[in-house]
Amino acid sequence: MDHLGRMRRLQEQLSQQRLDSFLVSQLSNIRYLCGFTGSAGALLLTERDRRCFTDGRYTSQARQEVKGAKVVVGRTPPLLAAAQWLGKHRRNSRSRTPQILGIEGEYLTVAAQKRLKDALPAGFRLREAPPLIERARMVKDTEEIQHIRAAVVVGASLFPTALETIRPGVRENEVAAVMEYAAHKAGAREMSFATIIAAGCRSALPHGRASEQPIPSEGFVVCDFGVILAGYCSDMTRTVYVGRVGEDARDIYEAVREAQQAAIETVRPGVTVGEVDRAARNLLKKCNLAKFFTHSTGHGVGLEIHEAPRVAAGQKEVLCPGMVITIEPGVYIPGKWGVRIEDMVLVTEHGREVLTPTSKQFTAL
Amino acid sequence: MDHLGRMRRLQEQLSQQRLDSFLVSQLSNIRYLCGFTGSAGALLLTERDRRCFTDGRYTSQARQEVKGAKVVVGRTPPLLAAAQWLGKHRRNSRSRTPQILGIEGEYLTVAAQKRLKDALPAGFRLREAPPLIERARMVKDTEEIQHIRAAVVVGASLFPTALETIRPGVRENEVAAVMEYAAHKAGAREMSFATIIAAGCRSALPHGRASEQPIPSEGFVVCDFGVILAGYCSDMTRTVYVGRVGEDARDIYEAVREAQQAAIETVRPGVTVGEVDRAARNLLKKCNLAKFFTHSTGHGVGLEIHEAPRVAAGQKEVLCPGMVITIEPGVYIPGKWGVRIEDMVLVTEHGREVLTPTSKQFTAL
Repeated sequence: MDHLGRMRRLQEQLSQQRLDSFLVSQLSNIRYLCGFTGSAGALLLTERDRRCFTDGRYTSQARQEVKGAKVVVGRTPPLLAAAQWLGKHRRNSRSRTPQILGIEGEYLTVAAQKRLKDALPAGFRLREAPPLIERARMVKDTEEIQHIRAAVVVGASLFPTALETIRPGVRENEVAAVMEYAAHKAGAREMSFATIIAAGCRSALPHGRASEQPIPSEGFVVCDFGVILAGYCSDMTRTVYVGRVGEDARDIYEAVREAQQAAIETVRPGVTVGEVDRAARNLLKKCNLAKFFTHSTGHGVGLEIHEAPRVAAGQKEVLCPGMVITIEPGVYIPGKWGVRIEDMVLVTEHGREVLTPTSKQFTAL
Repeated sequence: MDHLGRMRRLQEQLSQQRLDSFLVSQLSNIRYLCGFTGSAGALLLTERDRRCFTDGRYTSQARQEVKGAKVVVGRTPPLLAAAQWLGKHRRNSRSRTPQILGIEGEYLTVAAQKRLKDALPAGFRLREAPPLIERARMVKDTEEIQHIRAAVVVGASLFPTALETIRPGVRENEVAAVMEYAAHKAGAREMSFATIIAAGCRSALPHGRASEQPIPSEGFVVCDFGVILAGYCSDMTRTVYVGRVGEDARDIYEAVREAQQAAIETVRPGVTVGEVDRAARNLLKKCNLAKFFTHSTGHGVGLEIHEAPRVAAGQKEVLCPGMVITIEPGVYIPGKWGVRIEDMVLVTEHGREVLTPTSKQFTAL
């Protein structure tokens, strides 16, 4: 990974953003920038310096992982160690006062900000920085896309296992366990999120994590799952039907499938994510199902399972080559059932590539 | 669970804390208070009212789960919906201005606080509330202790599986996968954290999550793992030895074991957590190993794997019956090896009960 390049590009933006330094506290942003994967870290960027602060638990790990920044192991929490370092190494080259330290307002807590302020010497001021790293992370580089492709393939390989396991009477939990074991055997260190297996009327819960409930004799089973490989997440959903199929089940499934396809077909550079969302919603409107589509159409995926951009109504972010998003419309009839279909989609130079290789044909078990 | 009682006790503290209302945003605090387990929620407590705000994804789930509070499903993010509700239902009974809204400074981000301020009508002021909920959560009630006991037993049941799997050449990952599959079969919906299997020189990483590395022919293997059952976490560590055992391996193991035992023996009501930490550290000092004990001695466990109190040097929190903490000293010789031993310990009326049932005898495989 080009950690040094990522940090340098950020350092180059500092003066333009009128920041003297930038204190990165969000862990996956730290990982993105310098490779450190520990749970206690702060990355401080000034125009000239790149320092990754951590604590004694991570001495060896930080030295192994961090690229392009100096590792500082402190006895105080990393944010405070960074503040103390800044105090000791304040720039003398310019007389400008106050020195502006950029923080990540979406991640730094109110209490941590207060502690940081207290630890900084006089002459420093905090300013909420724009989401510079989140913007950089939206567009994946070649190496990231390779990791994502690998995660998608391993993720998709779990679906046949799910199909073999799903049958009336088997607990949702058990289906998830079998899938997760297969994921581990395939080399995934962890799942992207707690596997969702939501059967029968639980399929109407958009986030119905696998429960103790046995799969009923009839109804939809929503399977939403993904794996993390080399830090990168995959995310997919397929919905299958168990038992005797009625017309209404086929109709709702096909409506969701068409909505998902319509959204996929809008994906290309220059289109806003709001337009992608609208394509799915418009199709469901025609079937009088739009009011049961209660979440957004998708989200970016990368080091985190949910990252920018949000593919949601009214969002103005413009798609660019290298972005990886999910397209996952769903329809949920409370107390009855639900259907969701989700792929991961890479924005290419001239359009899109659906990364998820799995069939979306209506499947009855 | 006594959700209503928990919320009422908090409501009773509001006026004493000079708060007119309290906006709870931390998800496990919300779960603790009203039972809601979704990922988007805000719980608003006033002297008279208890409302749980969520969004359309969680309509059914919130109605099923929330006890003792009214569910409000909004189109805006839960925190903002709560702010709008406050604006509409401001108390007229007292003329006091401004109305003080308590927030959780350790969890609310700087940016969310700004959005919240912007969404509140004039006449409201935010104030960082003391950690009232964290304090309440430190002392577990009977039902919580039952859940924790169950999680500890299921967690401990994975260790024999680990012992059967650990042998030279098997990947750390594979050991973790086999344990996690066993956990799922035993009914655990998820692990408390990414299982740590750290073998050979990786055992010197206090947080060495299971990797692709095969277990070498000789050295320690640190196994740190836990499960979540009914929302409650377990956490335990055992360290075993693979290959031909030398005196130095036995010595370091016994030092850690004695340090852990010394810390356990200090646990009783009225003792500070700092004293518990000191007991472990003092013993390691005698063996000249204290400088290799680079983390704190333990932490509270409950709905979260790490919660108050921190069992660390200088911490003043006083142990009370019903607290559940880990005792987990470790010694890590960088580049060589490491040993950690961890139990969960319940503070009882007159002393302690070690919940973890697993032997701590030196084990060579």
